[in-house]
Amino acid sequence: MTIGPPQAREQLLRRCGRRVRLGMVGGGADSVIGETHRVALRADGLCELVAGALSIVPEIAFETARMNLIPEDRIFTDFRAMAEGEGRRDDRIDAVVIATPPQTHFEIARAFLRQGIDVICEKPMTATAAEAAKLVSLVEASGRILVLTHCYTGYPMVRQAREMVRAGSIGRVTLIEAEFCAGDPGVAREPADRAKRHWRFRPESMGKAAILGEVGSHAHNIASYVTEAEIVSVSARLDTFAAGRDVYDNAYLTTSWDNGAVGRIWSSYVAIGNEHGLSFRIFGEDGALVWRQEEPELLWRQRLGRPASRLSRGLDELSRPSLEATRFRPGHPEGYALAFANLYKDYAHARLSELIGEDRSPYLEYLPDVRAGLAVMQVIEAAERSHNQRGAVELVIRPGA
Amino acid sequence: MTIGPPQAREQLLRRCGRRVRLGMVGGGADSVIGETHRVALRADGLCELVAGALSIVPEIAFETARMNLIPEDRIFTDFRAMAEGEGRRDDRIDAVVIATPPQTHFEIARAFLRQGIDVICEKPMTATAAEAAKLVSLVEASGRILVLTHCYTGYPMVRQAREMVRAGSIGRVTLIEAEFCAGDPGVAREPADRAKRHWRFRPESMGKAAILGEVGSHAHNIASYVTEAEIVSVSARLDTFAAGRDVYDNAYLTTSWDNGAVGRIWSSYVAIGNEHGLSFRIFGEDGALVWRQEEPELLWRQRLGRPASRLSRGLDELSRPSLEATRFRPGHPEGYALAFANLYKDYAHARLSELIGEDRSPYLEYLPDVRAGLAVMQVIEAAERSHNQRGAVELVIRPGA
Amino acid sequence: MTIGPPQAREQLLRRCGRRVRLGMVGGGADSVIGETHRVALRADGLCELVAGALSIVPEIAFETARMNLIPEDRIFTDFRAMAEGEGRRDDRIDAVVIATPPQTHFEIARAFLRQGIDVICEKPMTATAAEAAKLVSLVEASGRILVLTHCYTGYPMVRQAREMVRAGSIGRVTLIEAEFCAGDPGVAREPADRAKRHWRFRPESMGKAAILGEVGSHAHNIASYVTEAEIVSVSARLDTFAAGRDVYDNAYLTTSWDNGAVGRIWSSYVAIGNEHGLSFRIFGEDGALVWRQEEPELLWRQRLGRPASRLSRGLDELSRPSLEATRFRPGHPEGYALAFANLYKDYAHARLSELIGEDRSPYLEYLPDVRAGLAVMQVIEAAERSHNQRGAVELVIRPGA
Amino acid sequence: MTIGPPQAREQLLRRCGRRVRLGMVGGGADSVIGETHRVALRADGLCELVAGALSIVPEIAFETARMNLIPEDRIFTDFRAMAEGEGRRDDRIDAVVIATPPQTHFEIARAFLRQGIDVICEKPMTATAAEAAKLVSLVEASGRILVLTHCYTGYPMVRQAREMVRAGSIGRVTLIEAEFCAGDPGVAREPADRAKRHWRFRPESMGKAAILGEVGSHAHNIASYVTEAEIVSVSARLDTFAAGRDVYDNAYLTTSWDNGAVGRIWSSYVAIGNEHGLSFRIFGEDGALVWRQEEPELLWRQRLGRPASRLSRGLDELSRPSLEATRFRPGHPEGYALAFANLYKDYAHARLSELIGEDRSPYLEYLPDVRAGLAVMQVIEAAERSHNQRGAVELVIRPGA
Repeated sequence: MTIGPPQAREQLLRRCGRRVRLGMVGGGADSVIGETHRVALRADGLCELVAGALSIVPEIAFETARMNLIPEDRIFTDFRAMAEGEGRRDDRIDAVVIATPPQTHFEIARAFLRQGIDVICEKPMTATAAEAAKLVSLVEASGRILVLTHCYTGYPMVRQAREMVRAGSIGRVTLIEAEFCAGDPGVAREPADRAKRHWRFRPESMGKAAILGEVGSHAHNIASYVTEAEIVSVSARLDTFAAGRDVYDNAYLTTSWDNGAVGRIWSSYVAIGNEHGLSFRIFGEDGALVWRQEEPELLWRQRLGRPASRLSRGLDELSRPSLEATRFRPGHPEGYALAFANLYKDYAHARLSELIGEDRSPYLEYLPDVRAGLAVMQVIEAAERSHNQRGAVELVIRPGA
Repeated sequence: MTIGPPQAREQLLRRCGRRVRLGMVGGGADSVIGETHRVALRADGLCELVAGALSIVPEIAFETARMNLIPEDRIFTDFRAMAEGEGRRDDRIDAVVIATPPQTHFEIARAFLRQGIDVICEKPMTATAAEAAKLVSLVEASGRILVLTHCYTGYPMVRQAREMVRAGSIGRVTLIEAEFCAGDPGVAREPADRAKRHWRFRPESMGKAAILGEVGSHAHNIASYVTEAEIVSVSARLDTFAAGRDVYDNAYLTTSWDNGAVGRIWSSYVAIGNEHGLSFRIFGEDGALVWRQEEPELLWRQRLGRPASRLSRGLDELSRPSLEATRFRPGHPEGYALAFANLYKDYAHARLSELIGEDRSPYLEYLPDVRAGLAVMQVIEAAERSHNQRGAVELVIRPGA
Repeated sequence: MTIGPPQAREQLLRRCGRRVRLGMVGGGADSVIGETHRVALRADGLCELVAGALSIVPEIAFETARMNLIPEDRIFTDFRAMAEGEGRRDDRIDAVVIATPPQTHFEIARAFLRQGIDVICEKPMTATAAEAAKLVSLVEASGRILVLTHCYTGYPMVRQAREMVRAGSIGRVTLIEAEFCAGDPGVAREPADRAKRHWRFRPESMGKAAILGEVGSHAHNIASYVTEAEIVSVSARLDTFAAGRDVYDNAYLTTSWDNGAVGRIWSSYVAIGNEHGLSFRIFGEDGALVWRQEEPELLWRQRLGRPASRLSRGLDELSRPSLEATRFRPGHPEGYALAFANLYKDYAHARLSELIGEDRSPYLEYLPDVRAGLAVMQVIEAAERSHNQRGAVELVIRPGA
Repeated sequence: MTIGPPQAREQLLRRCGRRVRLGMVGGGADSVIGETHRVALRADGLCELVAGALSIVPEIAFETARMNLIPEDRIFTDFRAMAEGEGRRDDRIDAVVIATPPQTHFEIARAFLRQGIDVICEKPMTATAAEAAKLVSLVEASGRILVLTHCYTGYPMVRQAREMVRAGSIGRVTLIEAEFCAGDPGVAREPADRAKRHWRFRPESMGKAAILGEVGSHAHNIASYVTEAEIVSVSARLDTFAAGRDVYDNAYLTTSWDNGAVGRIWSSYVAIGNEHGLSFRIFGEDGALVWRQEEPELLWRQRLGRPASRLSRGLDELSRPSLEATRFRPGHPEGYALAFANLYKDYAHARLSELIGEDRSPYLEYLPDVRAGLAVMQVIEAAERSHNQRGAVELVIRPGA
């Protein structure tokens, strides 16, 4: 059951008179993430998928497009042709969704930004910190939006945690623990057929430490999102356990943050039997907030010597940003798809506002952006440097570098 | 992340070339359930909402319709006008969604069935068992489909439970415990303004025992769905606790089932602090299955003297019907909206199959139907009879009645 | 780690200069409960076991006694001989622990009360309500103490719940849900060798409804203990599921209480896979308290529309009676044995006080007594009457009976 | 309820004819751990406390001794006097329990070992690795037993985990995660009165890294105990957060183990709101075992792509060592005191065996010993070295050192 009456932002679609038009690059039927984006973009009825270069394999590109009723003239097999084709249309897409491996993101994003088209980009944002820095410049020069789909930031209770940290509920932040330690069959073992390796297992995607971009980036991002702090130095240990694997599959990072906190980030593919594994525990001088992605409706608040509180999504006392990301009353689990959908909803509200000549910025406040993507890439590279120096602490931003 | 490659049923939309067209009666912006249906029907991109009599209050009807980009000529304020209007169109709706109070369902369903339009109906199906029996006849004579939105049957782990009971995983069923004991502010207290009472608190909707239709019907239905059994007799105790309330707000039923099991159904609005409260515990001679709607991803399997198993949605070893109702890999909570969406998905697959001349029946197997609606109404009336006889056991179907 | 400095009551042992002397009837090495009593009585160093008629099988009586270093001249095989023998000694036992089947309790209790010896009696207190009523008279005439070992009342968080209900934390009590639904191999199946049947499966112990005395009495007692209310009427359904069983193994009771609440008590041996199964959920107009014996350190407090609180044993803000029943700081689970030990501790403090001429009554306040035992027996018999009348509500105290 | 019939080891007390006699040094009424030892040693009736130098403050020493009914002639205020006094008695103590701060352990242990008296010693074993190495020599030369009270190794499910790792249930061990991150008022804040500081907050006890001895030693020990592996190198980060504190209160260790695994150990006093915080997660190539001290009855077994299993203490299928450490049937929580009691039980069985001329060694197999104490001290010192080198990996045993 829904949580309440329509609000001002819910009038944007009516006022604009059309849905936000999206195209997608990558995300074909063989993709692990494409259909997730499609469920998310459809959920609120604010967006429609009208164009796509869904695969570089033509059969998959056409098949997936037709399964989504994309018109024949907007089906592509090459992102450059799509960027140009869409750029020429009056009813061109408002944004492109990039759902390809990371080493291709930069070029795709650039092609669409050049056409004045917004970018909704999968994480990690790029293959290197250098590319990420260039993309920051491109986006900021373009005036367009880049939304980085760190989808877990769409969870209402993650946004609640951010508000509570901001409001001082736990006092000065001291310890930041984040994990994304997975161990399901899809990641714990190398595939029998190496040709079918996901990009995460290919060194050519983003080097040996791709795990830090694939799962570690979520753990890093969510901790940074909730605390509004940045990592300043890191000590790392990287290992490979799975037979036949060419990249690291376990990464331990010990971190220092610019708010004075210390913490750890654990990324793994070999935490066998873990089904997902993303969680955070943020401690402050007066309390703590604990959240696990597998029970995303709940945020646990700890206090010194007092009973813990179980905050449920949708309770009246939660913060405005949390409730605005909420659709149903407490007790009706919203889950992963609607968290993801919140990124599309926020983006759509921003774009619809822009289309009717209003300020889009309030809708962007909770969306991970291009600078969040850069921060992740910088930490990855610092972690590799630390690992190569037997774990000695390494600064994220090297003086003079 | 999605669970796998496209399957045969996923081609139906492409082959049909259009989405299933839906209209809605009730479910305006002031409704607690309308937007939930709309999230659910959009999620898979198989349906589109193209017509509606979304409220009897014209402003709400138009406002809500426009917020959903329903064309002006398909916005109604009267269901009869809508049934006739749609009946005349070539591109008429495939099905009507009925999201009004229960005492109106019968007439609305009849009006659309007469136009050869399928019905997707909120629960409880009707206000009385007599109406329900008539609706069974109407639907079965029409050849059309009535889907009763007992939405919790869309959860993959509920379908898994059904398959496991069917497969004998727990042996002969002995004890059937079901609860829907809520206690949030929306139901625990009477509203300050009586004029704003939800139908559940109005005796005129379906008598004093409406709680059995509102929440009790879900508990009864899910237990019956999982065990594929029917209640044959009932002992009931009904009470009212909230100040100023004219209907019962707590109902205890002790039940006998046609498979030899006994059990209980607890329905409540005054289980203070419960946020949802739907759960089942099904015991058999060799084991048990336990499920709670607030943790819907998990099904607990108990065995005699052995460790309990925690079955997660999406695991490879689950049954075909459970996996077909699944979109994401284990660990990515799907939640309530996608469970609800499974009812729309199943219906859409049935309708798309029919449209391209194929057998629709495989897609109907897991959908609650008109006979499930009748069974609920019969138990409600038997429970009232028992209560009025100091709890003495009452048969659901009275001999000769 | 222990919770704090010694308190006044902790000086009683030093002041008295000796431990409380206990004897035991029943509880031999073949008993399921004898050793539990012995762990409990030893834990705090306040009691010592110095005499016993631990079995009617001489080898077991002597073997068990010697394993406990009981002096040879205080080992018996007959409770009457023991009562007389102890009655003659200057250093006679302060109390006898009765750990035999229920149909023997009355005679044993009477024999020791006649010697002026206190009684610590296993539940159910007697085989019939008539015996229970007689025992009430005997105890009250004797001036001695009868402690009924409803051991779960020793849990600090159960005592906390009682204090919170008393203090109005949840408002007027409305719904009282209690369960003791077990399903381990020891109770779910009849033993292969009928001669080895526990008393709970023998109709001669206390009739066909012995389950209500064995597990149901705990569920009833704990609910009554926490709410300080009594059952006034009951509707019951009793069933037998296990093959070859001569007594009921599942009992559903719907109850009315003298505080205006309604509720249910579920007792079962065939809730397959449940390991223990005792729990309560007490709802009031403003909140609720939820406790499960399998997580006894926690008491969940629910409030209307607010986050639930997780109260842990030992927190500073808990009530005095809860903290006095507490030995360790929060986070160090105390478990079942120390809950049981609290009954021995309270009794010992009462007895030591008496021995040094002080008021024993403050130490008896939290101990289940002979009247609690009578209340259980009366409900059992009312439940059987209701069951025999197809579930119609039956008064616990029949007018004129 | 107890789990079964008496076994051979349960005859030891009867055959020996007396209990094991214990004395205690430290553990007065102002101690946080003394009474815990006393509950533990009493629980099984195998030991009796007959002598003590329970405090260096005479009033506390006498008061506590008298509260425990220790005879006047065996009450001491100096451990040396006690060692000599006991050494002269025919009925001297079998073992001394050392419950003083760590910097005093070595001298106390030496004094009693010289009298041929066994030692049951609190952790950390000594103040330095050098002392620990000397104590290893002393113990091994003496032929006596030193039991190190890493009490959590007494939990049946911890012993079960060890057996499962040994049996290959999770395959080759890869990742060893252990935490003891506390955050209750007693450790999160410095006491107002510095004179009342616990040893853990005094640099003079064992340096600035005492946290690694106080809580870290438990986390390290339990991980080592379960995996039967040793740490070979460590990278550490140590911090102080609490105002006015002179020692570290948060320690992050990243570890390499001699079985090829890597892992982390987190020790904290400032994980605010955590009540205890000890846990382990041991991953292997084929599965994982997860245990939390706050739910000690459960051991979670994870398998690749399969449902997780919830193993409960006492289930028939558990290993012999786990069941021998078990007193009650599943579902009756045994808790911390009985886990601790298992160390006393094992020691008592060893000592009783020795007294009747039988092999004591089988009873020592599961007890943490003097070498476990040394390993902890070595890691502490390596961690400090690493911390002082900006986290660079440091070997535990330096070549040539």
